[in-house]
Amino acid sequence: MKNSKRTSRRQMLRMGALAMGGGLLAGKKAQAAETPGKLGTPLGPNGERSPYEKAVRWTRQSRTPETGSSFTPLADSVGTLTPSSLHYERHHSGIPTIDPEQHRLIIHGMVDRPLSLSVAEIRRLPSISRVMVMECGGNSGSEWAAATGPDVQRSFGLVSCSEWTGVSLAMLLKEVGVRPGGSWVIAEGADACRMMRSIPLAKAIDDALIAYGQNGEALRPAQGYPLRLLLPGWEGNTNVKWLHSLNLTDQPYMARDETAKYTDLMPDGKARIFTYRMEAKSVITFPSGGQTLPGPGLYELTGLAWSGAGRIERVEITADGGKTWTNAHLQEPRMPIAFTRFRLPWRFDGREAVIASRAADETGYVQPSREELIAVRGTNSGYHFNGMKFWKVHTDGTVTNV
Amino acid sequence: MKNSKRTSRRQMLRMGALAMGGGLLAGKKAQAAETPGKLGTPLGPNGERSPYEKAVRWTRQSRTPETGSSFTPLADSVGTLTPSSLHYERHHSGIPTIDPEQHRLIIHGMVDRPLSLSVAEIRRLPSISRVMVMECGGNSGSEWAAATGPDVQRSFGLVSCSEWTGVSLAMLLKEVGVRPGGSWVIAEGADACRMMRSIPLAKAIDDALIAYGQNGEALRPAQGYPLRLLLPGWEGNTNVKWLHSLNLTDQPYMARDETAKYTDLMPDGKARIFTYRMEAKSVITFPSGGQTLPGPGLYELTGLAWSGAGRIERVEITADGGKTWTNAHLQEPRMPIAFTRFRLPWRFDGREAVIASRAADETGYVQPSREELIAVRGTNSGYHFNGMKFWKVHTDGTVTNV
Repeated sequence: MKNSKRTSRRQMLRMGALAMGGGLLAGKKAQAAETPGKLGTPLGPNGERSPYEKAVRWTRQSRTPETGSSFTPLADSVGTLTPSSLHYERHHSGIPTIDPEQHRLIIHGMVDRPLSLSVAEIRRLPSISRVMVMECGGNSGSEWAAATGPDVQRSFGLVSCSEWTGVSLAMLLKEVGVRPGGSWVIAEGADACRMMRSIPLAKAIDDALIAYGQNGEALRPAQGYPLRLLLPGWEGNTNVKWLHSLNLTDQPYMARDETAKYTDLMPDGKARIFTYRMEAKSVITFPSGGQTLPGPGLYELTGLAWSGAGRIERVEITADGGKTWTNAHLQEPRMPIAFTRFRLPWRFDGREAVIASRAADETGYVQPSREELIAVRGTNSGYHFNGMKFWKVHTDGTVTNV
Repeated sequence: MKNSKRTSRRQMLRMGALAMGGGLLAGKKAQAAETPGKLGTPLGPNGERSPYEKAVRWTRQSRTPETGSSFTPLADSVGTLTPSSLHYERHHSGIPTIDPEQHRLIIHGMVDRPLSLSVAEIRRLPSISRVMVMECGGNSGSEWAAATGPDVQRSFGLVSCSEWTGVSLAMLLKEVGVRPGGSWVIAEGADACRMMRSIPLAKAIDDALIAYGQNGEALRPAQGYPLRLLLPGWEGNTNVKWLHSLNLTDQPYMARDETAKYTDLMPDGKARIFTYRMEAKSVITFPSGGQTLPGPGLYELTGLAWSGAGRIERVEITADGGKTWTNAHLQEPRMPIAFTRFRLPWRFDGREAVIASRAADETGYVQPSREELIAVRGTNSGYHFNGMKFWKVHTDGTVTNV
């Protein structure tokens, strides 16, 4: 990693061309065997994926097909966004099919002027767009038990990043007029299980959105169509899908997903609850578990970093199991609470290498090692794991979990 | 447009709630008639669109289904990105189905060390991601003859915005070593018509990319899978899809698409050629042709602005046919050569209104009126129209072309 950039690139190019079978040309054009030489397929209604691309989501099975998780194929991701079709999902009672003309958002409870708004009315209001990461509170939870998935998709794939569009919840709350004492917002979805979460009023006023758009088009049903509560930087579960009701109260609801689930059982046997924010985290997506490097040579090591607390300031890479660290290059613009793509040229010399990344955000917070995390939180937790992720590159180029 | 923000929003909310049937609640929760109350659909392999969403591309018919254009549904767009499936398309001989393991990019001609690179080799190189607009040189060409489409999709829909990922062409050119006198790059696609364009070496070195990724995943076949030449800010046609060969020469190729097409026939009968850059432009997407406002009241007027020369600095709105102009709010971050979403609260008072937007970019260039454009370029042109677009809002709320 200490080579000059120019030398690295030249070596990478030549290593690639020579090692991987692409020979040099003496000014002669290659045979165009790979082109069909006939008319291609006609224009279609949608631009579909290539049949040669195999990046799909992996779905964790459960006893009922309406309950489960779909994992984003992070190993095949490029850039900083996730296509809506590949965004992770976590459902508790299936995906409702909602007619937006029938749907309402109701804001009621401790308010002066309750409101019932149609989707068309909400779309007519002043709107905001922002690129934002969404991460399940349980993402990489299996790392607590060191019983993680074999690849980056299965171990870290419950995180995705989109451009969301919607209206400011603060604006709506100003309109309904929260009564004195109103301090919690109980958000309820219109799915069969009526998913509920309790949100402190301060967060609702700070930066919450009622989203109807994702990546330039309407939300997709699996992401909450027609309306979703967006709480920047907070665990995915609080970003209530199919949002139907916001009830202003003076206390939390103590719903299933904030008592039995999404809590942190500490070493002393007490559980921390309402630990909403997802802290700084990063993971190397190439090379990562299940991939195979074709041979020694120069590669671009890359991955994703994000923080629920703001911008990513720094990502460091180790290739010697944590002894030494080098700053990776960060893709600009770095937006707060969004994926930041990091990259670093790296030479695989054919010897075993243990690689990892660690992110730091603009608050100064540094992603901990798994050991540092366990020292504070014990091993009773299943949620909110943000420890570093180590991959081992073997002498034959295969990559596995550490 | 002169109301205070707070008053506007409150009025918009109340107008909406009252005018559109959503009555106020007296602390009572609405009946949840719109929710199914039963388990939703199971998790699927991809997150698909809602069956209630009708935003699709419109395809201009031609005699052969392999030739034509697909238009992005701009009226339904939100935010600043275009989903890859809805990105505009312009094809001359269909969409080839290319096996990336067979495909090569050949860089040859006036170079010291010609290269043939596989897609895997290119993906291994240092990469860059950038959000970038792509616009067909013929977008809104029918505005020259004032015979434009009835809505914003058909009149302005050959423009889209994506996050692209690829490698720097400058890096590859440094590696092959351009020989003295080499001043043009002839880019050739692997489609049946072998689409070719001549690119000045200066542009290739400045900011060109060889892209393999779009919006977080692999390019889609209709966008050039597996490789596309990206020339930020230049007409779509020069962003050669299915990129197969880059030939360094000392003169342009004078290909069909830079002689018979994509040129500007001036009033004196001479044609300007190699007019690559798409200048600053904007269009209101709501309210726009074919839409109907449900009644008088406050609305959020919105649209998109972009410039091939850099960042959008300012977008002004008129609602009185061009007599007075008000600055719109611009969504941040404004990235160079990317869609910038603009928004402005606007009151429809039930009287006829003629609305338009005009954009200015960071170079100081201001989008001209159609008349100003014609004063310089005459009416022989079919390409590179960037004049202002006026919509008429009628007393009954319908919106049409002016």
